[in-house]
Amino acid sequence: MGAVVRAEALAYEGGQSVVRVDSVAAEEPLEIRLLLGGETRTIAITMRTPGADFELATGFLFGEGVISSGADVSAISYCVDRTIGEEQRYNIVNVRLAPRARPDLRPLERHFFTSSACGVCGKAALEALAIRRKPLRGGLTVDPKLLLGLPDKLRSAQGVFDATGGLHAAGLFDPNGALVELREDVGRHNALDKLIGWSLLQGHIPLSESVLVFSGRASYELMQKALVAGVPIVCAVSAPSSLAVAVAQEFGMTLVGFLRDSRFNVYAGQNRFDPSLLEADRAKAGPPSGR
Amino acid sequence: MGAVVRAEALAYEGGQSVVRVDSVAAEEPLEIRLLLGGETRTIAITMRTPGADFELATGFLFGEGVISSGADVSAISYCVDRTIGEEQRYNIVNVRLAPRARPDLRPLERHFFTSSACGVCGKAALEALAIRRKPLRGGLTVDPKLLLGLPDKLRSAQGVFDATGGLHAAGLFDPNGALVELREDVGRHNALDKLIGWSLLQGHIPLSESVLVFSGRASYELMQKALVAGVPIVCAVSAPSSLAVAVAQEFGMTLVGFLRDSRFNVYAGQNRFDPSLLEADRAKAGPPSGR
Repeated sequence: MGAVVRAEALAYEGGQSVVRVDSVAAEEPLEIRLLLGGETRTIAITMRTPGADFELATGFLFGEGVISSGADVSAISYCVDRTIGEEQRYNIVNVRLAPRARPDLRPLERHFFTSSACGVCGKAALEALAIRRKPLRGGLTVDPKLLLGLPDKLRSAQGVFDATGGLHAAGLFDPNGALVELREDVGRHNALDKLIGWSLLQGHIPLSESVLVFSGRASYELMQKALVAGVPIVCAVSAPSSLAVAVAQEFGMTLVGFLRDSRFNVYAGQNRFDPSLLEADRAKAGPPSGR
Repeated sequence: MGAVVRAEALAYEGGQSVVRVDSVAAEEPLEIRLLLGGETRTIAITMRTPGADFELATGFLFGEGVISSGADVSAISYCVDRTIGEEQRYNIVNVRLAPRARPDLRPLERHFFTSSACGVCGKAALEALAIRRKPLRGGLTVDPKLLLGLPDKLRSAQGVFDATGGLHAAGLFDPNGALVELREDVGRHNALDKLIGWSLLQGHIPLSESVLVFSGRASYELMQKALVAGVPIVCAVSAPSSLAVAVAQEFGMTLVGFLRDSRFNVYAGQNRFDPSLLEADRAKAGPPSGR
């Protein structure tokens, strides 16, 4: 199955209706299986848009902390079990681990928010993340004006969105604002997993010279994935959550929200914008007009 | 913690920047625990916007098929363990089941997409759902024009969205287009779980006389939750996925997508729109103009 499926729809507009054939984004379950030695284990079943499935599996395992580098993976393939129908084989991805890989399956139990000290809370979630990752340091600085054009570049490169009018996207940009790679999916998390999986398989992790832009909101989970991949500047087209802001503050990430048209908000990590540009801008703004 | 948190942000617009205090939607983990007899079991940990937590827990358990009616629940409370800090107690909800309840925990293992016959695929997902639910039959019909005003009604009733600029909403409307109830959350699934949990606790399930409207896209999981709650007409402000369309077609639901301004698309269940209104509209449309 491709990324787009045809569906007949009755289009109603201004009191008139007409039947037409519409394109909708494909959604199918993907089963991710881990193979280590002679053992096979189903790790996750996620609803995703078919395509870039090996990258999705790799990015998911990396983001969750099950694998820690591309070298942990020795082979990725679709299911080869011939007793399973051909169509369905493309909904099962087998990730064979390198013999020396030591996968950590505890994060998948999703109890990592809890600690005996404080029950379950945002603070515990941050502390659990701190065990896995150190804060990102310095590095990349960009001109704030450069960010303004990124959502349009992302949107105009979205092939499946154009067809279906509804797909999330995650895109990596270089420090000059050029689009490096993008991935689309019905799910925001999947789009980011695919992009990070691609980066890992290409040997580009950590993404310390990258600006990440994604459609929709910034949540705890998306920030966690970006942190693990080492992305210093994360931009969301829509609003951030409180915990997304907290992750950025705690781990030295720059978090930009509401990146639209000629404006955006910076919730953490202003240090990655050239201070002279921000100060010059402030001077130009002049005193408040009182209105 | 409330639904809104203050965060300092640097607002950059048109080359000028200013520091101001912004409101962001709160995101905190919620642990849902099931108490049956003397046994306590953690069922899920979900990232949510605090508020309506009992409804969220109830709606989640109902949508997943763990409980089948409001009578399965004898009590719901926040954690009362005094060794846990007060703030954190509000992130743990205990759902005590009635002695006669027979909870089904298998759906939570999330392997319900798989069947030995065909591996993992959309068809298997539909078949698994068919074991739990029969198609919805007839009932409610509405004037198509009535739908056009619903997103604005939903949006203008969204208190937290107004403050933060970024929260998903799910709203129930009666057949005359009046808003019955709405819930907001950083997650679309949570907003719908809260709304369905409210309905269950109020004794309104099945919601056979309701129109459901939610922000964002229609996916398999959202359609599954609506089906289990017996909602005949589901409207998404954005695009549906292929599997959302398939669920609607298979289970006799009306699925409306791209419900915006003066237009929408109907992907399944046109029978719930008065045919005379649709035909009258068609007649008015006249022959194609050729442009």
